Amino acid sequence: MGPHPAIFFLSDYGNADEFVGVVHAVVHRLAPSVPVIDLSHEVVPFDIAAGAAMLARALPSLGPGVVLAVVDPGVGSKRRPIAVRSDGDGPDWLVGPDNGLLIEACEALGGPAAAFALDPQRLLPPWAGKGTGPTFDGRDVFAPAASHLASGGDPLTIGSAVGAETLVVLDPRSPGSGPTSAIDGSAVSAPVTWIDRYGNVQLDLLPSDLDEIGVDATGLVQVSLASDPDTGSVLARRVWAFSDLRVGEFGLLVDGNGRVALVLDRASAASRLIGTGARVGVVVRIMAADESFG
Amino acid sequence: MGPHPAIFFLSDYGNADEFVGVVHAVVHRLAPSVPVIDLSHEVVPFDIAAGAAMLARALPSLGPGVVLAVVDPGVGSKRRPIAVRSDGDGPDWLVGPDNGLLIEACEALGGPAAAFALDPQRLLPPWAGKGTGPTFDGRDVFAPAASHLASGGDPLTIGSAVGAETLVVLDPRSPGSGPTSAIDGSAVSAPVTWIDRYGNVQLDLLPSDLDEIGVDATGLVQVSLASDPDTGSVLARRVWAFSDLRVGEFGLLVDGNGRVALVLDRASAASRLIGTGARVGVVVRIMAADESFG
Amino acid sequence: MGPHPAIFFLSDYGNADEFVGVVHAVVHRLAPSVPVIDLSHEVVPFDIAAGAAMLARALPSLGPGVVLAVVDPGVGSKRRPIAVRSDGDGPDWLVGPDNGLLIEACEALGGPAAAFALDPQRLLPPWAGKGTGPTFDGRDVFAPAASHLASGGDPLTIGSAVGAETLVVLDPRSPGSGPTSAIDGSAVSAPVTWIDRYGNVQLDLLPSDLDEIGVDATGLVQVSLASDPDTGSVLARRVWAFSDLRVGEFGLLVDGNGRVALVLDRASAASRLIGTGARVGVVVRIMAADESFG
Repeated sequence: MGPHPAIFFLSDYGNADEFVGVVHAVVHRLAPSVPVIDLSHEVVPFDIAAGAAMLARALPSLGPGVVLAVVDPGVGSKRRPIAVRSDGDGPDWLVGPDNGLLIEACEALGGPAAAFALDPQRLLPPWAGKGTGPTFDGRDVFAPAASHLASGGDPLTIGSAVGAETLVVLDPRSPGSGPTSAIDGSAVSAPVTWIDRYGNVQLDLLPSDLDEIGVDATGLVQVSLASDPDTGSVLARRVWAFSDLRVGEFGLLVDGNGRVALVLDRASAASRLIGTGARVGVVVRIMAADESFG
Repeated sequence: MGPHPAIFFLSDYGNADEFVGVVHAVVHRLAPSVPVIDLSHEVVPFDIAAGAAMLARALPSLGPGVVLAVVDPGVGSKRRPIAVRSDGDGPDWLVGPDNGLLIEACEALGGPAAAFALDPQRLLPPWAGKGTGPTFDGRDVFAPAASHLASGGDPLTIGSAVGAETLVVLDPRSPGSGPTSAIDGSAVSAPVTWIDRYGNVQLDLLPSDLDEIGVDATGLVQVSLASDPDTGSVLARRVWAFSDLRVGEFGLLVDGNGRVALVLDRASAASRLIGTGARVGVVVRIMAADESFG
Repeated sequence: MGPHPAIFFLSDYGNADEFVGVVHAVVHRLAPSVPVIDLSHEVVPFDIAAGAAMLARALPSLGPGVVLAVVDPGVGSKRRPIAVRSDGDGPDWLVGPDNGLLIEACEALGGPAAAFALDPQRLLPPWAGKGTGPTFDGRDVFAPAASHLASGGDPLTIGSAVGAETLVVLDPRSPGSGPTSAIDGSAVSAPVTWIDRYGNVQLDLLPSDLDEIGVDATGLVQVSLASDPDTGSVLARRVWAFSDLRVGEFGLLVDGNGRVALVLDRASAASRLIGTGARVGVVVRIMAADESFG
């Protein structure tokens, strides 16, 4: 464990209920010197792929410690609670359900160095209520495990080693499962991976993909749905920053994760695209446009 | 005060304004070594009973320290600001308005060991603005009081002892005021106490109540509004976990607070029940159903 | 830097994405002993004036440390990232974009003691991803700068001194740009500066302004839109606290910032006023009303 470890906490618990606060309280009780840093708890309920994508975006900024990620529709079922060790540069451990949520982050850290199936019986805190049901593993299993590991505890006292190859992976068509853009001559197709609060539409596309289809640094592109290129297509200009855009003009820029995003300046590109059916998971098609379109 | 005390902060302040952050800033200034753990601030505005119920649900996970709870429609009126000491296993103090918000948690901790009416004049921080009105006691009264008590300060320097029997209690018909289920032969009635972010509908009902009306571990029940048993009734199966349910099938399971909840797997039971009028406070009636209904 | 410095973090990042958490993670990595206190991150996207007003409201409660404020529609453009030093009683530094966001808080602290233009090249953390675009200066520039300054670092190692007179100021018609009420005989005009979660409508109006137009402590006033005094006017009573109001009666009281607010008891004044066009920035006109109106 590096110096000043933290627990990095991501979930679909939302901020309206007390779930997040209760997890903080449990960690404070078990590992009072370890700060808990909330990544976000507003992942769409049950959306494992969205949680995995969020975790992957945040990962490069995270230092030593433990990722505690809970998007867990299978809570109470036979899905395993797991802890995965990483020897990469960043968090030392990832703790959560074995449902694919952790896997992209894990790969980004160089792959699992070791994996453990957690034993809930050994993790339930002594103060935990008798007679509670199996619906809140964040409190009863994952927070205790993260506290234990962030404190330098031995994983074998809370679980048993399992083969990394047994870990569940995400459906490869999901956002969060890695790059899936496809170049076809002067066009490239890529799924929408994220729509952020500002309405910026992130694509699973690298700027080099734009270079490859012949779009230069200020070039124009035509953006449409891959499934229906004739409907709702928009024209966008490749730019460096939001402020390079005129009012109402769509832009393609490199965002804070190094991916290409479809944006407007001080307005929501997503709102303008709703009629076209653009949403996370939908594949869009981008092709170089004639400058005369501008 | 136990080791590593924290302040556990719950309110209806919401996350959109700066209220919560300002309270954190005040505590940091007065008691910099005491962490503030947010339980939630999205209690419905003015809903004392909902705040009391949330606090009661979180309570078993809270360690030493001070509960700071502010749902305070009477701010600025003659309602007393109070601090209540507990000798139970958990928080040492509960601080907030004397309007019933703290009382269920207090009872769960074994009842008040002592109670104090706080003196706002002695609590207002030296830097506080002159000429501000009596609308933000979280900042001006409760945060200073919680900081004082979490630091081991004497309650008599910030208030005066009052009889525990003078504390305001909640209307007993409110959620948060304690179990109110009623068994009537093969049926049981219980109010809805909470609808969480996932749409799970918690009832003020223990699993033993289901046993008592003859519903076994995988039995079927008929759920309807107590006020109108003929309308909008649904069939639900008693299960252990969400994953035991078929798509679209209602379940009754024991939730993370040991209460019975009406749920769907990976979907919102509450949304499906809106047409039936199910909401917090409404009493539902549950009776064993013939297996042939399934 | 005073004892126990904190970083006070305000933005329009929202709580749905991971932006806020990533900034926390960066600060923890660079300045692990400095707590980050979130003021709020739900400033309306791109609304610099709303952010400035929020910061000004919170300011009197903030102790030593660094204000980190990011409402930054011009991210990636030539607008300067800045750090402003204050010698007033409160935060020692304010860090953010040079777009007027910091200026009212700065003035409230006695004006800038020194100002620095930050150099992003010297601030980008060593672990930062190669090939990311200029869209997340909160992570790449402002969090590193705030961490550096909160740790007592020399501003000249991360930027260069600029004249305080070169700092961008807000449009004086914006909320957040300072008092703008205007007295005209028995009437006073003032803009709406804030509508909080409870629907309280804060005006840029001091209680002394009400005295001046002859409204005593329990007097009645007529409130209307300045642009259209004949439409949608409401009658309100000057009161001390919410509880002094009858159900449905509008009140004018002094709020927690020492400003006059138009309120209802346990209900949203803003919701009731929506038909009248009341919203932040709209100027309302208040005049003493005959008691017989009541």
